[in-house]
Amino acid sequence: MSISKESIINLGHGSGGELTRELLDTIIFKTFNNPYLNQKHDGSIVKIEGEIAMSTDSFVINPIFFKGGNIGALAVHGTVNDVAMCGAIPKYLSLSFIIEEGLPMSEFKTIVAAIKDAADQSGVQIITGDTKVVERGKGDKIFINTTGIGQVHKKANISTANIKPGDCIIVNGQIAQHGIAIMSEREGLEFESDIVSDSTNLNHLTIGLLDKFGDKIKLFRDPTRGGLGTVLCEISTEINLGVFMKETDLPLDKQVAAVCEMLGLDPLYVANEGVFLAVVDPSIATEVATFMQQHPKGKNATNVGVFTTEHPQKVVMESSIGGKRIVSPLVGEQLPRIC
Amino acid sequence: MSISKESIINLGHGSGGELTRELLDTIIFKTFNNPYLNQKHDGSIVKIEGEIAMSTDSFVINPIFFKGGNIGALAVHGTVNDVAMCGAIPKYLSLSFIIEEGLPMSEFKTIVAAIKDAADQSGVQIITGDTKVVERGKGDKIFINTTGIGQVHKKANISTANIKPGDCIIVNGQIAQHGIAIMSEREGLEFESDIVSDSTNLNHLTIGLLDKFGDKIKLFRDPTRGGLGTVLCEISTEINLGVFMKETDLPLDKQVAAVCEMLGLDPLYVANEGVFLAVVDPSIATEVATFMQQHPKGKNATNVGVFTTEHPQKVVMESSIGGKRIVSPLVGEQLPRIC
Repeated sequence: MSISKESIINLGHGSGGELTRELLDTIIFKTFNNPYLNQKHDGSIVKIEGEIAMSTDSFVINPIFFKGGNIGALAVHGTVNDVAMCGAIPKYLSLSFIIEEGLPMSEFKTIVAAIKDAADQSGVQIITGDTKVVERGKGDKIFINTTGIGQVHKKANISTANIKPGDCIIVNGQIAQHGIAIMSEREGLEFESDIVSDSTNLNHLTIGLLDKFGDKIKLFRDPTRGGLGTVLCEISTEINLGVFMKETDLPLDKQVAAVCEMLGLDPLYVANEGVFLAVVDPSIATEVATFMQQHPKGKNATNVGVFTTEHPQKVVMESSIGGKRIVSPLVGEQLPRIC
Repeated sequence: MSISKESIINLGHGSGGELTRELLDTIIFKTFNNPYLNQKHDGSIVKIEGEIAMSTDSFVINPIFFKGGNIGALAVHGTVNDVAMCGAIPKYLSLSFIIEEGLPMSEFKTIVAAIKDAADQSGVQIITGDTKVVERGKGDKIFINTTGIGQVHKKANISTANIKPGDCIIVNGQIAQHGIAIMSEREGLEFESDIVSDSTNLNHLTIGLLDKFGDKIKLFRDPTRGGLGTVLCEISTEINLGVFMKETDLPLDKQVAAVCEMLGLDPLYVANEGVFLAVVDPSIATEVATFMQQHPKGKNATNVGVFTTEHPQKVVMESSIGGKRIVSPLVGEQLPRIC
């Protein structure tokens, strides 16, 4: 009955009995060893000063292992980044697994180790959790929910309501990498050089920006599912302003662009996991881009567009040959189970 | 493309594009209408004074509709109760869906309505969420994660470390009802009168107890998966004390007892969703039981046992005919997907 002799997860590991306890003791508590989790209760008690940001995501990505990461690291990055986008300093995560019976124990261990690494790099602690197991054919290997709480940065005043015409949209890095990496894994596509998911934590960079620029940062947003195009459409609709951007300004890896072309995908709608946009006062746009470029997570930072009263609720992109097109909201699904 | 014409959930509803937005606007935001959620961001900002309790659970119960509730109400009760067991006042929940393609929209709406009702009755608000859709055969109708945060009660000092020999274990109500209700749904068993899940929120009662008895309450714990027996085994092992209890003291409905007998199940290991135990100083044991009995969620409250130095780390139960047996920790799975 010892875990070492168990090669797969079975229903007993989710029953709340001794097998559950053993799984927790030998893998979870051992890995995430911290005083909060070590209470081994159904919840944890922490203290956060001031306002609290809270965000949740369930990760159902397929495949669970991919170039540049796995579902475990992604589950940390995704929620850490969502808390960061609120203008907050991510502090604590909850961690909840829904495992399909039959998942190799070795894969579970690899995923848990990746969660630990990602949490350490992000500066957050896993303080409470849950493990459920479903029968074969009633899940798909593993789904992970993380919910994060963080302390709102004292200088932050993040709100779409603060955006004014003329404000600039600075993007930290190259778009569409996560979606294309997953797509190529899934379809078994082989490229000359590898396209790797950009899954990473962005909180250190966003906190740095708030430290330096405070409330001149109007908005952070991470364009994950739906991509940059969908996020810009949502914001422009919400605040009744237009967005004007040039295709040539988009930070886009040549190889990713080529694969998008080949597969008939528009990179504006392809998912990202290490990209965010900052909407800033035009007076600091260049300075913000330069600041980002000096940070490892912002090397390819670019000013990609501007808010305008010209065409309210419409995102307009000028193509490389000078034509203009409207970037429409994404309807239906492009790449399912991308995060 | 309007939701009213859609009879089922499809992959597009989880893609992050327009169908997702429409699902959120017409069902989620409309139902949970509150200023936090209405920010429509990836996270929400709230304020909690003092210490924060956090707890998470993923609900995978099968069937999703059962006598006495459904997965939606259960997902609220479960997490509200876990936060309450920390000695806290539950305040805010996140809500995350993993839906299998093909779920009838009508069932989704029923579940969302039940979540709203349960949240209102518990006095908590849904402030942030996530919706993912997986292909047919890669999930099972719907899984729900809720994560809750609450304010630790000013008078609370909940910890197993406070438990002393002689402390009493008061249980608020009849055990094993949830597990048996689910089991009978699943197996299509018919009984003369219906056994109904006890799924409910316990926070108003636990807060009342803390208001009145403060730190004389040593511990709250809700015996869900694994049942009362598993929880008592865990506590007695952790604090190196024994538990002595009498079978005749256990609050157990006669019909539930009969079904357990028939199915060969020990009610001590059957899951509960509306039961909790309070470990209290013996000087207030009777008063605590009486206080509970006056509350709608504690009508069957009973002192079921006592902590002792006699047989450390062992739970011993005296049967109705005077024999004694050791209540062992549950190994493996008894009833999978019970919550």
